[in-house]
Amino acid sequence: MKNPTAAMIVIGDEILSGRTRDINMHYLAKELVKVGISLKEVRIISDDQGEIILSTNELREKFNYVFTSGGIGPTHDDITADSIAKAFKVKIGVRSDAKKMLSEYYERNGINLNSSRIRMARIPEGAELIENPISGAPGFKIENVFVMAGVPSIFQSMVDLTITNIKHGAPIKSKSIIIKLPEGEIADKLKKIASKNPEVNFGSYPFFRDGILGTDIVIRGYELKVIEDLAQKVEEAFKVIAENKNE
Amino acid sequence: MKNPTAAMIVIGDEILSGRTRDINMHYLAKELVKVGISLKEVRIISDDQGEIILSTNELREKFNYVFTSGGIGPTHDDITADSIAKAFKVKIGVRSDAKKMLSEYYERNGINLNSSRIRMARIPEGAELIENPISGAPGFKIENVFVMAGVPSIFQSMVDLTITNIKHGAPIKSKSIIIKLPEGEIADKLKKIASKNPEVNFGSYPFFRDGILGTDIVIRGYELKVIEDLAQKVEEAFKVIAENKNE
Repeated sequence: MKNPTAAMIVIGDEILSGRTRDINMHYLAKELVKVGISLKEVRIISDDQGEIILSTNELREKFNYVFTSGGIGPTHDDITADSIAKAFKVKIGVRSDAKKMLSEYYERNGINLNSSRIRMARIPEGAELIENPISGAPGFKIENVFVMAGVPSIFQSMVDLTITNIKHGAPIKSKSIIIKLPEGEIADKLKKIASKNPEVNFGSYPFFRDGILGTDIVIRGYELKVIEDLAQKVEEAFKVIAENKNE
Repeated sequence: MKNPTAAMIVIGDEILSGRTRDINMHYLAKELVKVGISLKEVRIISDDQGEIILSTNELREKFNYVFTSGGIGPTHDDITADSIAKAFKVKIGVRSDAKKMLSEYYERNGINLNSSRIRMARIPEGAELIENPISGAPGFKIENVFVMAGVPSIFQSMVDLTITNIKHGAPIKSKSIIIKLPEGEIADKLKKIASKNPEVNFGSYPFFRDGILGTDIVIRGYELKVIEDLAQKVEEAFKVIAENKNE
């Protein structure tokens, strides 16, 4: 059994310039794990049409799903929808269903549907709309690519709306064991345990906190019972008091 | 004048699985801005040899510098150094200079240099070492690729050590203007201002805070005076009291 795979494209000069921290990636990663979809790659790229087209076409071929965030607003630097249309070689224009969604939202909220806002009804041909309960302007899905807003609250609501409707895999369970020993002390034994248990994945993550070099071992797999038994074995192997935390 | 460009590769299943948040990217982004190097792309990929080779070779061709984080420790899942050697088609083995660096560090700190730790002295042929003041095991530079640790404190010290020794560009200045109006209200006017001032970049970032949809306009360029004058113009154009903050 293989879980579906996914990639994410974060479109944002503001993240590459260090001005803001992306938080959408972490949200998507956590939501995908819950439904058994493996996030395999994330690209953070600049607001550049060529880069958006290139990444979209590479990643939609390679993975089952692609999620994008950012660049679908009403301003001059919002070029995602047009770039996605170019990537798929389809036409783009103001679509009546998207315009209706916008005008209804704006009417309810007493907002003027001006020409800049109508720009947000430009949707590539053949795409399905993704509702935006927060500010009206929809995202869209075209084939296996989900084009969503960059504002975290809107991105999150769009993820929640779409993720339930796509093919899920088996949720990945994990257990983490904190070892107060540096990786160098446990690497050899851990390698032996890992090679004996190929049905699960052993990740080893060093940390440096309060002057202590320690290791966080994460066991990932589909069967919680198997993982828990192995976690116990790992703990005993290193004979340390470990704090366990469930994910 | 064109600033040097850079890409970053974050090697980490633990980030793709949503278990941890990457903080190295934000650190690198901020440091690169200070020295006038444009971070153009970040890829977060899994601990997979094929993916590391692919991304390294794509990005080192495309950009002036590539910085990687993660996967250079002593455990079985640390495959970055070997993958980078494969990407460059060079040999890799325990190098005496790296082993000396390790053994001196461990001797000073009363740590046993076991076989797992010696693994961290495996360095691709032709690479230069990057010192690790925190836990001894070096990173390395091969051609335009800087291979560094994933533990944030170590990553940061390696960035600080390397960044001063590479070719810098003109530092990019920026000013941000907070407008308490949604993007849809200001898009048209902003587009006109932006098209009249092609020597700077106008970014428009919507936010949704405390029930208010607002816009953060960021002006970026090389001349602070030009940026400040334009910021004033933008403020006046929207006749709102804006909070200004320097980056």
